[in-house]
Amino acid sequence: MSREEILFANEAFYQAFADGDEAAMDALWARDLPVACLHPGWEPLYERDHVMASWRAVLQDPPGVQCRAPRVFCYGDVAFVICFEMIRDNALIATNHFAKEEGRWVMTHHQAGPTRAAPAADADAPPTIN
Amino acid sequence: MSREEILFANEAFYQAFADGDEAAMDALWARDLPVACLHPGWEPLYERDHVMASWRAVLQDPPGVQCRAPRVFCYGDVAFVICFEMIRDNALIATNHFAKEEGRWVMTHHQAGPTRAAPAADADAPPTIN
Repeated sequence: MSREEILFANEAFYQAFADGDEAAMDALWARDLPVACLHPGWEPLYERDHVMASWRAVLQDPPGVQCRAPRVFCYGDVAFVICFEMIRDNALIATNHFAKEEGRWVMTHHQAGPTRAAPAADADAPPTIN
Repeated sequence: MSREEILFANEAFYQAFADGDEAAMDALWARDLPVACLHPGWEPLYERDHVMASWRAVLQDPPGVQCRAPRVFCYGDVAFVICFEMIRDNALIATNHFAKEEGRWVMTHHQAGPTRAAPAADADAPPTIN
């Protein structure tokens, strides 16, 4: 089912992020579809080369991010996941965008920013799928 | 052409935002497709009723936002626009998501957050389309 595949791709993103795994991160992002990335506070990144260079920089010293309370929004062969990103006790809120490229869900955009909210205490429960 | 239609929908969003026009804002958002909204610092909003209630609250006292340097990313019947939101001299960076619903481009998600960047001086030039 697509929604589970999207959640799996989202989990793979946070695994690569937490592990500082540049090769896995590179493999997750679209090759041919347009991509973008808005790291918190950074200037916007619009080309694949710039996006991947930013991840190589971030993954040099991975901040130990953990995904909480992911929620999938599906629009056919395009989807996004909204989730909290916990870095120790600090919460960010993120949207991760995915699209089907050659039959595989790949990332096309990531935006994270500060939030005053926090995931619910039961955020380790199964994710919500719309 | 779709990309121009998407830019037009993005402009209509900022017009409604600047004008504090609740009816126009409501009409811009998807009726049946799932929607979400991440206002800067707020907790995530996932249901249409909650999203529209948030806009009614924001539009009570519209902050005079202006869109700069919009850039369209297209994936068939789904797209997003990344742009700066200028509120006086403060810049936010936003992603606005659109999808086709009954032949019309409607909003499905909005996320805005702080940025240290600023639009280029020529950001009033014609928008970039990927």
